[in-house]
Amino acid sequence: MTAPVRRPGKKDGKGKLKIIPLGGLEQIGMNITAFEYEDSIIVVDCGLAFPGDDMLGIDLVIPDVTYLKQNFDKVKGFVITHGHEDHIGALPYILQQLNVPVYGTKLTIALIEHKLKEHNLMKNTKRKVMKHGQSVSLGSFRVEFIKTNHSIQDAAALAIFSPVGTVIHTGDFKIDYTPVFGDSIDLQRFAELGKKGVLALLADSTNATRPGFTMSERTVGKTFDSIFSEHVNQRIIVATFASNVDRVQQIVNTAYKYGRKVVVEGRSMVTVMEIASEHGYIKVPEGTLIDIENLKNYPPEKTVLITTGSQGESMAALSRMAASIHKKVSIMPGDVVILSSTPIPGNEKAVSNVVNELSMKGAQVICQDTHVSGHACQEDLKLIYSLIHPKFAIPVHGEYRHRMAQKELAEFMGVPKDNAILVSSGDVVALDEDSCEVIDHVACGGILVDGLGVGDVGNIVLRDRQNLAQNGIIVVVLTLEKHSNQLLAGPDIVSRGFVYVRESEDLLEEAHGVVSDALQDCLDRHVSDWGKIKNIMKDSLSDFLWKRMKRNPVILPIIMEV
Amino acid sequence: MTAPVRRPGKKDGKGKLKIIPLGGLEQIGMNITAFEYEDSIIVVDCGLAFPGDDMLGIDLVIPDVTYLKQNFDKVKGFVITHGHEDHIGALPYILQQLNVPVYGTKLTIALIEHKLKEHNLMKNTKRKVMKHGQSVSLGSFRVEFIKTNHSIQDAAALAIFSPVGTVIHTGDFKIDYTPVFGDSIDLQRFAELGKKGVLALLADSTNATRPGFTMSERTVGKTFDSIFSEHVNQRIIVATFASNVDRVQQIVNTAYKYGRKVVVEGRSMVTVMEIASEHGYIKVPEGTLIDIENLKNYPPEKTVLITTGSQGESMAALSRMAASIHKKVSIMPGDVVILSSTPIPGNEKAVSNVVNELSMKGAQVICQDTHVSGHACQEDLKLIYSLIHPKFAIPVHGEYRHRMAQKELAEFMGVPKDNAILVSSGDVVALDEDSCEVIDHVACGGILVDGLGVGDVGNIVLRDRQNLAQNGIIVVVLTLEKHSNQLLAGPDIVSRGFVYVRESEDLLEEAHGVVSDALQDCLDRHVSDWGKIKNIMKDSLSDFLWKRMKRNPVILPIIMEV
Repeated sequence: MTAPVRRPGKKDGKGKLKIIPLGGLEQIGMNITAFEYEDSIIVVDCGLAFPGDDMLGIDLVIPDVTYLKQNFDKVKGFVITHGHEDHIGALPYILQQLNVPVYGTKLTIALIEHKLKEHNLMKNTKRKVMKHGQSVSLGSFRVEFIKTNHSIQDAAALAIFSPVGTVIHTGDFKIDYTPVFGDSIDLQRFAELGKKGVLALLADSTNATRPGFTMSERTVGKTFDSIFSEHVNQRIIVATFASNVDRVQQIVNTAYKYGRKVVVEGRSMVTVMEIASEHGYIKVPEGTLIDIENLKNYPPEKTVLITTGSQGESMAALSRMAASIHKKVSIMPGDVVILSSTPIPGNEKAVSNVVNELSMKGAQVICQDTHVSGHACQEDLKLIYSLIHPKFAIPVHGEYRHRMAQKELAEFMGVPKDNAILVSSGDVVALDEDSCEVIDHVACGGILVDGLGVGDVGNIVLRDRQNLAQNGIIVVVLTLEKHSNQLLAGPDIVSRGFVYVRESEDLLEEAHGVVSDALQDCLDRHVSDWGKIKNIMKDSLSDFLWKRMKRNPVILPIIMEV
Repeated sequence: MTAPVRRPGKKDGKGKLKIIPLGGLEQIGMNITAFEYEDSIIVVDCGLAFPGDDMLGIDLVIPDVTYLKQNFDKVKGFVITHGHEDHIGALPYILQQLNVPVYGTKLTIALIEHKLKEHNLMKNTKRKVMKHGQSVSLGSFRVEFIKTNHSIQDAAALAIFSPVGTVIHTGDFKIDYTPVFGDSIDLQRFAELGKKGVLALLADSTNATRPGFTMSERTVGKTFDSIFSEHVNQRIIVATFASNVDRVQQIVNTAYKYGRKVVVEGRSMVTVMEIASEHGYIKVPEGTLIDIENLKNYPPEKTVLITTGSQGESMAALSRMAASIHKKVSIMPGDVVILSSTPIPGNEKAVSNVVNELSMKGAQVICQDTHVSGHACQEDLKLIYSLIHPKFAIPVHGEYRHRMAQKELAEFMGVPKDNAILVSSGDVVALDEDSCEVIDHVACGGILVDGLGVGDVGNIVLRDRQNLAQNGIIVVVLTLEKHSNQLLAGPDIVSRGFVYVRESEDLLEEAHGVVSDALQDCLDRHVSDWGKIKNIMKDSLSDFLWKRMKRNPVILPIIMEV
């Protein structure tokens, strides 16, 4: 008999390391992954996602952590790889449901603390600042923070030492041999761990479809230098990601070199600058930074504005300047605007609109060579695989096609086909020395945050919003006498988002006739079930509008009882 | 005295050629430009625009032609450059308001006729098929159709001969020395006209920001050949633009070469294929085309599907296949899907979703080198400028940044700075031998089409839809006695798209209390103005919800009178 003998107790994952991604695999965003061994759980990252186009009115999306709440007594803490929103943004919401300690490097913890303050959670949340190279024991696990490079400082990969073996989670990373601040990624440590034997690698898939190497952040500094040297007589405005402190550092350095004063504008830009300065992650030469109020005291060609809005976000500083609704800065003909970013998929049109508006005001917009990615491309990933040489590969951080590309790359780098697996959020991956397989699935998904409401908007409400958005609403209201069912008032028709009422009087009159006839027919036939009356009015009006207009508004019949 | 003497009668454009773009300059789409000389007007193109993200529920946008209607007796006809929707799509709507003859090349007229049939306008619309090289006299104008290349066949530039000089409108064009069908662009004619003297050039700005030359359509054929030769054991599915008949021809040719049968799928793809075949613009070898019903009779590796959906449009054939809701085609592991297109800005996310879905079903998705643009890049534009050498340049067909790029290019090619002008839709440009200036502005804009309604949805209705989409609606309804203002029923609260009613009972109860209190207060104070009562209820509820939820639903108070 050659069939494998299923060892008892293995099916439920006993004695195995379980890896349970609770988000981050269907999209870029909402990264959170639980590692469980017997009575210990640690959670890597706790990010939010920005709402999709169909999530009307939603501000942000946070992960469903039902599984963690059910196993609360096992959860030893959050270990955070870096301070981007898609890795820390859900913490203030989740910590209210799951109060456990948070571990991260200095800048990461500083950014988290800013959020905790906003949510009044500082007092009740334990934080521990970790240094690269340091490790912490959490139940059955020991977690070591390993230096990496990324588009935010202080990013870390995690070596997770478990009873069944070592797992490396890269976090978001790139390989930058010449970083602007601090050290290069700790390739030696990856090699050392690889040499000792790594059971599984969870690596960043964002750029796994892109050939070649990711350029050093420092190359952008060279571009800034040449742009500044070519435009000595013009004001320069640079829009970039607030969290990319190294980018801001390079702009500041170039401004200083060319004798320009620097103004920082945009709420998140100001916040990150403050936090980064306070903790020593950015160094601004004395006297270089000026307040926006003092901008008018310097000739334009002696100033640089560093601003948010590089993604065309409608309320960000650059968009407000472009639309002439910024209170303190007006775009002037001759201004040079550098968009130091590439549009995140979905933002292309918004960015394009801002570029048009800036151009119309006479600004010169420069995009070329002013951005590099923060994620490893294919050749970088190959280097990581060759250093770590994992037995199993579980690509993370990316849409299916990105993770698929990493799986193919892993196979190319010698990981056996069956050992490189693509999983979905909620999958329970069970690992031991010999096997890596999905054995179960737990609840997962996105909880919608709308204003102060968390989770009170779901699919039904969203579908209503989509219907309302498409064709508006028609309210049909009437008053009936309680017992006799005699019509006392109405039916009245009121609409919102349907048609111009003044220009569509005939149509609305006809619609009123249709509803009145349907109602009268019900009353004549002594239909006493009001639900039925409502449905009959609704259907007849709906039919009429579809035939007449090919439109499908939400119809809301209301019967008042007197 | 050196100031220019303003000659009498010149200010109102008398004796001048007026060029009046009524659309197409704020976006790519809705191209329509009037040329007016004394009592003659001709109109170049009559396109539609697709709705922006903020135009909720809108199907398409057509130009406001009030100016043409006011000058109806002058309008001699529409001259159409090519058969794309953004150049012909509004014709069936506008011809109902402005019944004048339509001139175009054979395929262009055939595509227009298909639309006229759908709108029952064939009998009442005069059409005239023009050949390249032919010209037609229309009032004071003579219009010559000049062969160009584009991503649809039978595209034409127009030489418009007017009493003040010759104007060339390129339409949408590229330079293809080796087109798949028919001749290359008639560069000789452009040179000949340029030699004689061209007053103004209106050229396509779509790719004016792109350096280099646009590749020949034929290069895509080579890519198809190599993909087909590498995947002889797999089914191949190619998604592309329905109107790109040359692309389809190349897919058919490659399929035939490799002994595959071809299935055409997607409504617009089938329509265009029929029209193109009927008029001889595509040649399919006998027996190559099979019906989709017969697909099952051939081994997958002996078939090719040509389909719509290359832009990720949710209802197109490819998207339905990817989502497993296509009735006749299921994606199989190993299928090769070629996306022969690049995403139009704004469609990136939708395309990416389709790629993910296809990958998850085991298909291999290929995008690289499978598309070329239909628009001239910078070096092509330079060639056109050097052949035509116009006195004035009025860049068209593009967003501001594209037209700005062409203006800069025109200056580089020797057009004096003040002779290259950027105009807005509605601007009246007056031209004579010596000058080109904006002298007036006429009504213009987009008319929204929603279902069968044309123009009955405008800004107020759209704003309502946006508000409804963000936070839903709350209807507050109550019944008062006519004279006594005594409350007979209500206030009742009904909501749609606001919150899960079942999970938010407490909140809705509180909201009810707030409205009831506000109402009672009005009644106690004998407020008799119902408008005032409604506003007080609305404001108090609105305040409550903002404080409590940070949300702003539409609130619709209704008072019934008994």
